[in-house]
Amino acid sequence: MILDRIASPADVHSLDNAQLVELCSQLRESILAYCSREGGHVAPNLATIELTVALHHVFNAPVDKIIFDVSHQTYAHKMLTGRAAAFTDPARASEVSGFSNPRESAFDLFSMGHTSTSVSLACGLAMARDLADQDFRVVAVIGDGALSGGLAFEGLDAAGELNTGLIIIINDNDQSIAENHGGLYQCMAQLRATGGTSPNNPFRALGLDYRYLEQGNDVVELVHALQEVRDTPRPVVLHVHTKKGAGFAPAETNPEAWHHVGPFPLDANAPASAHGSGATYAQITGTYLIDAIQRDPRVVAMSAGTPYIMGFDPQRRAQAGRQFIDVGIAEEHAVTCSAALALAGASPVFGVYGVFLQRAYDQLWHDACLNSAPVTILDFGASVFGTTAETHLSFFDLSMVSNLPNLVVLAPCCQEEYLSMLNWALGQRALPVLIRVPGAGVISRPDLAPAAPVGPSAAAADHATTESATIDWSRPAYQTVRRGERLAILGLGDFLPFAEQIADAVLDELGFSPTVINPRIASAIDMQELDRIAADHAALITLEDGIVEGGWGQQVVAAMAASGMRMKCYGISKAPGFPDRYQPQELLAKHGMSTAGILADVRTMLGL
Amino acid sequence: MILDRIASPADVHSLDNAQLVELCSQLRESILAYCSREGGHVAPNLATIELTVALHHVFNAPVDKIIFDVSHQTYAHKMLTGRAAAFTDPARASEVSGFSNPRESAFDLFSMGHTSTSVSLACGLAMARDLADQDFRVVAVIGDGALSGGLAFEGLDAAGELNTGLIIIINDNDQSIAENHGGLYQCMAQLRATGGTSPNNPFRALGLDYRYLEQGNDVVELVHALQEVRDTPRPVVLHVHTKKGAGFAPAETNPEAWHHVGPFPLDANAPASAHGSGATYAQITGTYLIDAIQRDPRVVAMSAGTPYIMGFDPQRRAQAGRQFIDVGIAEEHAVTCSAALALAGASPVFGVYGVFLQRAYDQLWHDACLNSAPVTILDFGASVFGTTAETHLSFFDLSMVSNLPNLVVLAPCCQEEYLSMLNWALGQRALPVLIRVPGAGVISRPDLAPAAPVGPSAAAADHATTESATIDWSRPAYQTVRRGERLAILGLGDFLPFAEQIADAVLDELGFSPTVINPRIASAIDMQELDRIAADHAALITLEDGIVEGGWGQQVVAAMAASGMRMKCYGISKAPGFPDRYQPQELLAKHGMSTAGILADVRTMLGL
Repeated sequence: MILDRIASPADVHSLDNAQLVELCSQLRESILAYCSREGGHVAPNLATIELTVALHHVFNAPVDKIIFDVSHQTYAHKMLTGRAAAFTDPARASEVSGFSNPRESAFDLFSMGHTSTSVSLACGLAMARDLADQDFRVVAVIGDGALSGGLAFEGLDAAGELNTGLIIIINDNDQSIAENHGGLYQCMAQLRATGGTSPNNPFRALGLDYRYLEQGNDVVELVHALQEVRDTPRPVVLHVHTKKGAGFAPAETNPEAWHHVGPFPLDANAPASAHGSGATYAQITGTYLIDAIQRDPRVVAMSAGTPYIMGFDPQRRAQAGRQFIDVGIAEEHAVTCSAALALAGASPVFGVYGVFLQRAYDQLWHDACLNSAPVTILDFGASVFGTTAETHLSFFDLSMVSNLPNLVVLAPCCQEEYLSMLNWALGQRALPVLIRVPGAGVISRPDLAPAAPVGPSAAAADHATTESATIDWSRPAYQTVRRGERLAILGLGDFLPFAEQIADAVLDELGFSPTVINPRIASAIDMQELDRIAADHAALITLEDGIVEGGWGQQVVAAMAASGMRMKCYGISKAPGFPDRYQPQELLAKHGMSTAGILADVRTMLGL
Repeated sequence: MILDRIASPADVHSLDNAQLVELCSQLRESILAYCSREGGHVAPNLATIELTVALHHVFNAPVDKIIFDVSHQTYAHKMLTGRAAAFTDPARASEVSGFSNPRESAFDLFSMGHTSTSVSLACGLAMARDLADQDFRVVAVIGDGALSGGLAFEGLDAAGELNTGLIIIINDNDQSIAENHGGLYQCMAQLRATGGTSPNNPFRALGLDYRYLEQGNDVVELVHALQEVRDTPRPVVLHVHTKKGAGFAPAETNPEAWHHVGPFPLDANAPASAHGSGATYAQITGTYLIDAIQRDPRVVAMSAGTPYIMGFDPQRRAQAGRQFIDVGIAEEHAVTCSAALALAGASPVFGVYGVFLQRAYDQLWHDACLNSAPVTILDFGASVFGTTAETHLSFFDLSMVSNLPNLVVLAPCCQEEYLSMLNWALGQRALPVLIRVPGAGVISRPDLAPAAPVGPSAAAADHATTESATIDWSRPAYQTVRRGERLAILGLGDFLPFAEQIADAVLDELGFSPTVINPRIASAIDMQELDRIAADHAALITLEDGIVEGGWGQQVVAAMAASGMRMKCYGISKAPGFPDRYQPQELLAKHGMSTAGILADVRTMLGL
């Protein structure tokens, strides 16, 4: 095996063409076998094997700097830079992350997992090189899907003015996670169809030199093309046409389904879901929204490149017609466009991972909140039980969203409450609403919330007599789940069951039954209820499934700080930095959120 | 006067060419007289008078929707839509804001003041129109400077795919606030030079139809051009070449200086500063950074279109050479590029208004903080004493930045502390640092901090024996300004003098001397000092010049919540929404921050 002899990219430099081809073949076999065992980003990694081998043949990493945008396509890069064993030896799979990670290897330049950053990073490296009078090459590899993000444009625009050597490789497989969206992609298709000669060239229009290579999965052609641009004295774009899922027929046929998958047999035609089976909030949301769309022509489901998180598989997308919009990886546009839709009378629902909503912070503030635009944002994955990669942690959302004026932040604890809140959000025209979709799994609690009505228009008509039709979820109204004594436990959203579990332990161990509260809202305080609690409780604790600093609990505690009650907020602290690939229960315990840890604190607070 | 007969745009529809020309002339005279009295955005408004008149002649607002990007160029629009008196009658000037405001007029569609949003808003309005089977026209007017923001690209890309009527007017005056930056602008210049026929067309490259008009300050030509695109069935770009400051020779000659100014005599050649005279943190920063740049070739001053806020006037920009970078209005790129610069050994300093740093929230999280990149961010205007327009409030920054892992957030109270912190930030290589530049004016407090050293390299050499050279500002170390009893008052940054003032009042009125603390850091808690305080004080209050929810004080209170101390956080609450054009002392009092209000709370907390 050639692969066995590659300890570092230096071993790739000397390979001849036949060996390069053979190396690609061995990498593809290993990566497929690895994905079959472990799951992972199948289609993006298969597309870039030849490009990666060619890059490490032509360039001299880590002296030369190669930056892979998003870095979900770096399996081959990792295998060529001393980390092959993690892909070939099942016992060592946990040694590598799915993304670029400088703690793992000097060949990984940044911790990164968000799209569209690579060109800006490359600009920074090239500028630092020139300021220090150093001499090395800088290469950014960015996929066509990532070009829809505004930061990619900002980076390309800056590169267009940078009078120094910089290579930008457009890895164009004509596919984002789902299909591409935007006028840009018509022009990208024309470029591919014309061998790069179409006049409407988005790269030349930013002042960049441009070259095209059709054979993006031919390692020998790639080597030639890279050699031609290697020593460029100014920024150049090399546009290469690759095939997502290349070399694995099912992924070539259905690259969206094979973008990121769980383990699968190699003779599988359709992948297993990476997200498990059973009821999911994706399915619940998709079902609800399709019904709402069919009842009301003004309901719009909006996605920024990740329609599946809200249950919009290709079938639901087709059903929704023009009432479903995927804007590409462009969260800023999604929020600003939603704000205008809402103010013009439509009912947009934007489903987004908490961590990617970060990209639209200013648009939330300026377009949605300042204008009180009645948009509904569904904040997915915001939980310590969500994705555990440091780049994708979505539980920092509470400090981002719960302090914005006018934004109603709701935290349902169960599917009944979720649907009631979603239904209310779509029916009201006053305020932007963000619903923190429970991230710790779907539970049903008909004892806490009535079964949901079936559509937004139904709220005003058919179901006017049910509680959920009459609740105004923007008014803070904490729900007392158990009325007890001495200690009040407030468990936000999906941490309500945790609050109940602590209450059980207090009864068992300390001999009294505490009060348990379901707050339901994270953006406002129920002062009436808190004053009642302060009148006959000595202590209060808050539990939230997210960051504690700037989150919800600190607002509760600050509101009651003059009372003299003993209080404590539980959540994940920012203090030790970003956790990476953690076990959720271990992380919670580390931050004081174990039954034993909380009981010990309660004893101290109550002087027991 | 024709102007006197214009009560609404309906009165503009019927004007003939000569009357349109005369109306423009009268508007120009009024706007110049208004700006001379009140100050304002002189150059942008003079550039767009003809365009605005032509728009209201050809389109039927408010049925047709016209969106002005940033909306700092809407004086003529306001004068034509029933608000002329505010510009012609000095007694009524306060009736209009400087930006688009729906509470002011149905002709203003959104509260807006941030760049690059208009195309996305227009897409949303066009989509809502189609979903409701309505029939009206949608026009976005966006300046060339605003095209550098990624959101503008995202909007244009989305428009390129929108198969419906939408008109995008590029108001190209070849000038941002300062000069334009980015490869895009070479191509814009080629388009202007070739009458729109240059092949490298950034709009066609996004799938958009395109037309060019050279005579962007000729109202008759503009009317013809607008009539041609008015009933377009699909998105079209009309690129018009305007002149910033048109009709006022000094502003035509120096549009940067005349972008936004204070009152000035009409025969003035150079404008008075809109920002007052005397020592400013802009000057202090510019002086320090030029010195640092001259000592160290790796120090880089970075701006996103607002170089003047950090003292980089054209002279300092020239002095700094390649060590000054203006990326255009592209905060995302500024932060991500800075992160790479820093990790590659350079020392970037990014100066930005707090409110615009919002646009780079994800880049702060993902590129700077996750990667512990030693960038220095100077957060300007973050104060209730900063800009009071609702669109530009910069005091929400604390809830945005003080909860991010790894980010050191420093809050100096005086210029000595500021320079010491800035000097330390540039000298360290471990962490990203944000310095909250005092927004309540420059004060000198040599009693609290030693005079600053003169440059980053000096910290290690010449001044190794001074305190500021040895302080590690990332370690929380609260400074006791007065050691007192019973009550501790923590005044963050520029609110330290306010804390001292409250302490004086407590001594006068309540007869005891409280402890006063200068916290100096907003991202970490000095638990040792707080525990000492809790041991012999019954109450504690925090004062911060910014939002209280999710800010700094709530972290202090949460850290001490189990102690039983009586505590209260003072800051601006998000609860009543966004304040607009307020009096700072009134706003503070409304949020409990008057001497009388705080004394009353202290009495209650101490049971007096």
